[in-house]
Amino acid sequence: MTAVEKYNARVEKINSLVCVGLDTAEFPQFEFNRRIIDQTAKFAAAYKLNIAFYESHGEAGLAELKKTMDYLRATYPEIFTICDAKRGDIGHTNEKYAKAIFDYLGFDAVTLHPYLGREALEPFLNRADKAAIILCKTSNLGGGELQDLQISGNPLWRVLAEKVFKDWNTNGNCMLVVGGTYPKELAEIRKIVGDMTLLVPGIGVQGGDVRAVCEAGLNSQKYGLIINSSRGIIFADDPGAAARKLRDEINEYR
Amino acid sequence: MTAVEKYNARVEKINSLVCVGLDTAEFPQFEFNRRIIDQTAKFAAAYKLNIAFYESHGEAGLAELKKTMDYLRATYPEIFTICDAKRGDIGHTNEKYAKAIFDYLGFDAVTLHPYLGREALEPFLNRADKAAIILCKTSNLGGGELQDLQISGNPLWRVLAEKVFKDWNTNGNCMLVVGGTYPKELAEIRKIVGDMTLLVPGIGVQGGDVRAVCEAGLNSQKYGLIINSSRGIIFADDPGAAARKLRDEINEYR
Repeated sequence: MTAVEKYNARVEKINSLVCVGLDTAEFPQFEFNRRIIDQTAKFAAAYKLNIAFYESHGEAGLAELKKTMDYLRATYPEIFTICDAKRGDIGHTNEKYAKAIFDYLGFDAVTLHPYLGREALEPFLNRADKAAIILCKTSNLGGGELQDLQISGNPLWRVLAEKVFKDWNTNGNCMLVVGGTYPKELAEIRKIVGDMTLLVPGIGVQGGDVRAVCEAGLNSQKYGLIINSSRGIIFADDPGAAARKLRDEINEYR
Repeated sequence: MTAVEKYNARVEKINSLVCVGLDTAEFPQFEFNRRIIDQTAKFAAAYKLNIAFYESHGEAGLAELKKTMDYLRATYPEIFTICDAKRGDIGHTNEKYAKAIFDYLGFDAVTLHPYLGREALEPFLNRADKAAIILCKTSNLGGGELQDLQISGNPLWRVLAEKVFKDWNTNGNCMLVVGGTYPKELAEIRKIVGDMTLLVPGIGVQGGDVRAVCEAGLNSQKYGLIINSSRGIIFADDPGAAARKLRDEINEYR
């Protein structure tokens, strides 16, 4: 089963497009994460772990990340796991990152920077069993500074979406990151990439609107989105209820 | 003393623009690194540690990285240290990376992806004591796929160099990565960025030519370059001799 098939199977089984972002600020993180995971797993199609929150605590933080992943894989092996690492180096180095993230930590997917081009990302793209999630139109306010630059009348993010769809996705394992704060661009990207799965951060604290995201981004099967909420779920008084509420809100528009 | 001043002081003191890239493949890495460092320190203006080579060994690898940095800072505190991490996330997350790389590991500088724009990189740019080294024109063969896209007749890398010089460098702590495999572009970037320091990887195994790099990239003081060699030094029979040879070769053209 490929990573994309794993995600779709999970979506189908629990009827949810929710991704819970384990951007855990407190330390040590594993006990906190286990509690959040156990409370939200029923509603979670995916978990996204932002590696920066763990690296900032040095090797002890990385150990907490590994324990979280070991727990997830042992206890909830059907749930799709994303390492939000935003990596991207030359090929020789990307082999090391792929080894760290896919093999050592055991993630199903990783987020990647496109700036070095397809050739550099081959160590990720060649892993047909895993998903390569390329940054396209990011959720942050200043993301347009480079991403909106016009190439013969088309913004860079659109040129990139076309490249990924046509040239980078040979193994059918590419996805794109499109911020939930940009539903208009999300709709345009959906037209370019067919039924490709899109990771949508920026819901909640960052201001993205669930209805606008669903109307703009669902694919022809009413799938094709991984809708992430981090702070809105993990810092809620009842994380399980918050995840269920987001799942239900999304499903209203599916 | 700012990071840029630290680098320039070291260059002046030992008359060298050489950066030794500790892309150490064997594990554990610290003993190997200590040997290389002790053999090359006399000729090294900087050390660059590619974090992927350590992360690929999990928390044990990160511990080797930390030990290497602790040794460098205690034993050779005047040598400039670069974390080749190619990071770049939204601001909230970049704060975590800055903490990990500058404060926990203690590096003087970090390499960064520009794709999310200046606003996202503020947690790095605001650290006036540290250097933010932005990827501009990378050394890899396929780097042009995005970087050479034309924006009103100018390639993306040139538009970015102008942005960094004019808008991102408020604290005087920005540098750019320009691959040694692209001396023509290096010369053009030098014209745009004044005396800004440029990190030049790609010498040696990747095919960059030292003479072409120096002729294209030196600034008005015959400084302004951090010329990195990794595999060409650390895998040499005599790493010290290899570092000295590179220093001398560079100085021929200064």
